[in-house]
Amino acid sequence: MPDTPELLLALDYGGTKHTAGLLRRGEDAWAAHGRVYSPAGADAAYDQAAMLRIAHELLARTPGQLVAIGVSFGGPVDAARGLVRLSHHVPGWEDVPLRDRLEAEFGAPAAVDNDANVAALGEWRRGAGQGCNSVLYVTVSTGVGGGWVLEGRIWGGADGMAGEIGHVLVRPGGAACDCGRTGCLEAEASGRAIARAARLRLAANASAGERLRELAGGDSEAITAMHVAQAAAAGDELAQSVLDEAARMLGTGLGAAVNLMNPEKIVLGGGVTKAGERWWRIVRETARAYILPQARLEIAPAALSDDAPLWGASALAEFSVV
Amino acid sequence: MPDTPELLLALDYGGTKHTAGLLRRGEDAWAAHGRVYSPAGADAAYDQAAMLRIAHELLARTPGQLVAIGVSFGGPVDAARGLVRLSHHVPGWEDVPLRDRLEAEFGAPAAVDNDANVAALGEWRRGAGQGCNSVLYVTVSTGVGGGWVLEGRIWGGADGMAGEIGHVLVRPGGAACDCGRTGCLEAEASGRAIARAARLRLAANASAGERLRELAGGDSEAITAMHVAQAAAAGDELAQSVLDEAARMLGTGLGAAVNLMNPEKIVLGGGVTKAGERWWRIVRETARAYILPQARLEIAPAALSDDAPLWGASALAEFSVV
Repeated sequence: MPDTPELLLALDYGGTKHTAGLLRRGEDAWAAHGRVYSPAGADAAYDQAAMLRIAHELLARTPGQLVAIGVSFGGPVDAARGLVRLSHHVPGWEDVPLRDRLEAEFGAPAAVDNDANVAALGEWRRGAGQGCNSVLYVTVSTGVGGGWVLEGRIWGGADGMAGEIGHVLVRPGGAACDCGRTGCLEAEASGRAIARAARLRLAANASAGERLRELAGGDSEAITAMHVAQAAAAGDELAQSVLDEAARMLGTGLGAAVNLMNPEKIVLGGGVTKAGERWWRIVRETARAYILPQARLEIAPAALSDDAPLWGASALAEFSVV
Repeated sequence: MPDTPELLLALDYGGTKHTAGLLRRGEDAWAAHGRVYSPAGADAAYDQAAMLRIAHELLARTPGQLVAIGVSFGGPVDAARGLVRLSHHVPGWEDVPLRDRLEAEFGAPAAVDNDANVAALGEWRRGAGQGCNSVLYVTVSTGVGGGWVLEGRIWGGADGMAGEIGHVLVRPGGAACDCGRTGCLEAEASGRAIARAARLRLAANASAGERLRELAGGDSEAITAMHVAQAAAAGDELAQSVLDEAARMLGTGLGAAVNLMNPEKIVLGGGVTKAGERWWRIVRETARAYILPQARLEIAPAALSDDAPLWGASALAEFSVV
């Protein structure tokens, strides 16, 4: 062991929330940790300056030598080249060579990948996927994203596009998806999809969904997936039916993933996974119904919550140290 | 190089056709090759005795030392334990420890996997998937099977069940599948599915499908997928419509695989891939329509035809030599 602690820098660029953590190599708790929120209208330059400021601040007050940097970025990334393709939320991130810039800034090797992939690595390294040879991580939140960890490494595929389970077709002719197609898992099972389906059902049936209307303060446009889950828990039949169908669609998509890849474990994260036991049961039952009996089906809740990308980034850094 | 050539023994246990090949390590052509057909009613013991006879015969007439054995088996296999689970066609293969028996018989290490996985490895090592970091091989024949080669190795998943693309749901509420579910890719796009769909369409419409009825000699029960492809090529609209729909279903399943795993290449083998350019075009167009634009879609015809499992078995043997 060297006398000077070896430090790993983990960076999580969220849409509006940017987090940095410093980990002494071999330890299990952050040596230093900081977070900054972007104001409305911030661009890539602003966010990057804010992130660098935190990182330098953490490094200044932590004795040791920085040996590697791992990065989670909330948007499409060309991981092989360390290039951010774009952010769906923040302008100015188009084709930014983030890896090279960080290496130049800090003089240490860096690795960059998208948030779903990095969160998958985090859950594998320190969360619900520990000890597994293969993990499919799926986050069911506003959208639906996913990532694979196979034999201890992120599987990004030929173009860094693996894990896009949100765009697997689960209902031919189904709801319109932001990607321009219809019936994608994201368009049928995400938080936004649940809220939209509930609004459509309320509009079509003026006498149903009383509890749900109440929760949204009488404004059906204000309905969120959380309202739907709460109303369902309180016995609202319309809300329950919307939530059940979303769970079936997710189970269908997971079934396809199991038939294709037979992972040791599936880890589900994101806000929609708080929708209750019934949602979990339907997800599992539906997936089970679509796969061959010889394939296992282990679906576990994510353990790291919002910290999965930062922990994953520390693992990316850890693995890039030879 | 040793003076005595090192020999790799490749064995392909088909349903009724059993093939053995001997390869000198490092060479590209079989040093010796033999095949035997099982009579109707043959059981596992008969088939195994026939295969061992050929293998010993090839070894007896080929100078060199056997260093490893690779095996393709036409049915479910527990590759990690070298165990045949069963044959869908031949009785007596239930839980046969084929790897251990071959190692005892020949005194060399053996590796066993199912035919789709081994064919995938064959296409990767010596066929259409050469040089690729990731290949999905799909055979569209009587049924639909598949296998992954990731970074030069078969990806079997946690239970050896990866690659079961034939049981990915592509049409909710669709045709009944042998697996007991409905709408599986195999039930919608296989040769048997094409023949069945054509028979149903003919039964429902007495005036359509004239060319197809002719090709089947007036007996619609005798219709095969090849008849459907031939009739379609000759302008039979009913046959064309059945074939187009099967191609769309295959493209849908491949789209799911690309969204999930983003392979560098997809290799398609099996008799149905002889259905003509239009079938290929629809498969590609449909898959393209279901995937994100950043993910590549390379779909190539298999290069090794029926020899893929035997070549794959030789690669399995090759890789098991340390």
